[in-house]
Amino acid sequence: MRAACDDVRSRFVTSYDCLTFLTDYGLEDGFVAACHGVAARIAPAVRLIDITHLVQPGDVRRGAAVLAQTIRYLPPAVHCVVVDPGVGTARRAVAVEAGDAILVGPDNGVLSWAIDAQGGAARAVQLTNGELWLHPVSSTFHGRDIFMPVAAHLATGTPLEEAGNELDPADLTTLPAPTSRVQGDTAEGEVMSVDRFGNVQLSIPAADISRLGVGFGSPVVVRCGRRQLTVPYLETFAAVAPGELVAFTDSAGLISLAVNAGDAAQQLGLPPGAHVRLSAAAQP
Amino acid sequence: MRAACDDVRSRFVTSYDCLTFLTDYGLEDGFVAACHGVAARIAPAVRLIDITHLVQPGDVRRGAAVLAQTIRYLPPAVHCVVVDPGVGTARRAVAVEAGDAILVGPDNGVLSWAIDAQGGAARAVQLTNGELWLHPVSSTFHGRDIFMPVAAHLATGTPLEEAGNELDPADLTTLPAPTSRVQGDTAEGEVMSVDRFGNVQLSIPAADISRLGVGFGSPVVVRCGRRQLTVPYLETFAAVAPGELVAFTDSAGLISLAVNAGDAAQQLGLPPGAHVRLSAAAQP
Amino acid sequence: MRAACDDVRSRFVTSYDCLTFLTDYGLEDGFVAACHGVAARIAPAVRLIDITHLVQPGDVRRGAAVLAQTIRYLPPAVHCVVVDPGVGTARRAVAVEAGDAILVGPDNGVLSWAIDAQGGAARAVQLTNGELWLHPVSSTFHGRDIFMPVAAHLATGTPLEEAGNELDPADLTTLPAPTSRVQGDTAEGEVMSVDRFGNVQLSIPAADISRLGVGFGSPVVVRCGRRQLTVPYLETFAAVAPGELVAFTDSAGLISLAVNAGDAAQQLGLPPGAHVRLSAAAQP
Repeated sequence: MRAACDDVRSRFVTSYDCLTFLTDYGLEDGFVAACHGVAARIAPAVRLIDITHLVQPGDVRRGAAVLAQTIRYLPPAVHCVVVDPGVGTARRAVAVEAGDAILVGPDNGVLSWAIDAQGGAARAVQLTNGELWLHPVSSTFHGRDIFMPVAAHLATGTPLEEAGNELDPADLTTLPAPTSRVQGDTAEGEVMSVDRFGNVQLSIPAADISRLGVGFGSPVVVRCGRRQLTVPYLETFAAVAPGELVAFTDSAGLISLAVNAGDAAQQLGLPPGAHVRLSAAAQP
Repeated sequence: MRAACDDVRSRFVTSYDCLTFLTDYGLEDGFVAACHGVAARIAPAVRLIDITHLVQPGDVRRGAAVLAQTIRYLPPAVHCVVVDPGVGTARRAVAVEAGDAILVGPDNGVLSWAIDAQGGAARAVQLTNGELWLHPVSSTFHGRDIFMPVAAHLATGTPLEEAGNELDPADLTTLPAPTSRVQGDTAEGEVMSVDRFGNVQLSIPAADISRLGVGFGSPVVVRCGRRQLTVPYLETFAAVAPGELVAFTDSAGLISLAVNAGDAAQQLGLPPGAHVRLSAAAQP
Repeated sequence: MRAACDDVRSRFVTSYDCLTFLTDYGLEDGFVAACHGVAARIAPAVRLIDITHLVQPGDVRRGAAVLAQTIRYLPPAVHCVVVDPGVGTARRAVAVEAGDAILVGPDNGVLSWAIDAQGGAARAVQLTNGELWLHPVSSTFHGRDIFMPVAAHLATGTPLEEAGNELDPADLTTLPAPTSRVQGDTAEGEVMSVDRFGNVQLSIPAADISRLGVGFGSPVVVRCGRRQLTVPYLETFAAVAPGELVAFTDSAGLISLAVNAGDAAQQLGLPPGAHVRLSAAAQP
């Protein structure tokens, strides 16, 4: 009976209308275009959405965060994700089914937060089937030669199990989740990222602030290192005068610090990873 | 009869093959991709052309200028334009029909020069119909949650009037047009923009130069602040030797200053908004 | 009989599913989008792949190198290539059939290395048929007004010979090939390019290193100017510890120098064009 069921499943293959692509390749070279070309040859009818290619070289955590915060807004898709400082070494290449998506990339944790956001991995394979790759395979450009060709084949309906040996999803590499906890009257977290506007995204969910009794309109105390400042907690950065600091709930549901029409990261000197504590300000 | 006519009109809906997208979101984050994803879910068959996402954060005039100079080369389309320093405040969100296009964005003037370039607004609505939005609506990312979903619905043929309450187009916010006038023997204007090549685009149309009797091959006197210099007025910057200054009519029909194979903005110290006067040079 | 054959050939027109686009226009302005718009009007069903638009302004050699290294991974396509410091001067505009592609651009050599990579030019025309152009033609934006409209028409199946007068392919402008030779026990070359990761790509093919008896795992002596250093020659930069220098065969089959998780170009002070010599290290 098992075999029969498997047989049925493999006949109802899933194809995807959309491929997405996230890397640290930058836009100055032809790297991204070579991968687009490979995808267009294998899956000419599939739409390709670039997520970003400006992840800082080798910054696996940043790639993981951008993917996890973006994936819920993308259509059902095969996501090709290549932030891969270990390219050409023994790190595994994997494809993982999670929710309505398949994620393809190196098994270095870059996929892990998005897999969580998708409700966990249903199935995973190690990419061992070289028939889906582009040959000769280079040692340093697996995005072009392995990840994108496999992703494009999966988008056209090639069953996941044809891409390689099944893996126990529990064996996939995961990144430690960003630090965030509520202790007593304080929510602690770290700077997740700084966006183009200089807005400082913290790992602290808006719900944690609510638990401290801080609502929109209340002042909140921000502590980082020895510094301490009190800023209003409002619905949007645009609610304060230009040049003023504000805390708000950003579009990912996390607390962010901003300077309206200014650069909070620069003004506060807060790089990614910096430790930050928030608490309710004493009301006068 | 009115109702019958409306009924007929709403049945002959216009759909668009093309969506365009212009923002100040930058390319480092997943912001643009999240909007692409939202568009792909609602309007999977529509082509999406990115105009630029590198408008300086909050620079409404720059966004307006790029859109107005590009729109005539784009197919009939719904244009989603988000340079929106007032996101989450009381500023209105609008959709405007003008020529063969619908423009969707904040009512802060960013659409106004393009509407002029399209021959003026035929109809406008305030975006009040939340049924077309993505919920929950964030306070700071209306591009993803309001503007792009509405634009995508309009592209698929949703009638404009379903997006919200009709507005008198005369009530739309407009940006003051760039200063430009001919007074006596002098054409006055301002620096509109500086492009990647360092070319300095002035707000002075080529026609104004002609009215001063300056034709290709003539020298023209450029005055900015206390400085004054005489440069040839030629058909293209490539007509002078490398390193030489030249005035030419650029691809938008405006007078620009360039250094062949160099950076005129840097050499002349002319930022956007700087006041510049042009006149015919005394012929020897 | 000749005329009859020509007649037959012109009736079996080739159309392309793909247009590609490579320029030095940058991404801050609406230049690239205007060209996309022009293409979408003429060839709405054709997929457009951007190769890069961040070639340094006027850097014809860099544009030629990116195109030549990328083209083999792209589908059969019309490639529109505009790195054109001589725009508006007497330099010719051309379209060249080579292999499964047509290349459209200025005749300044930017196409030449890609034509070589495609096995040489089969046919070439000078773009003289203004019926395929966008009017009025500006003097400084031939990408929008000449190259892209012609490329889009060719993609839809307009025969090459309709774009203009046939040229002898031998008359096309070619760039001198990057210097590379083996002399005695030394392979000499130059820095071709520096990518986003700071990897230094040399013009020396991996085959030249093999001829010197250097295989993976062997040390290689790198000489540039008066400096000399010995680095391991390995399959990938990731095979050394972070911060260590390494020589490897890159994804284009050329020898590159890298610092794992670092910036080799910065550390070695090697800009494009710098002269480099490689030889086998004396084995202990």
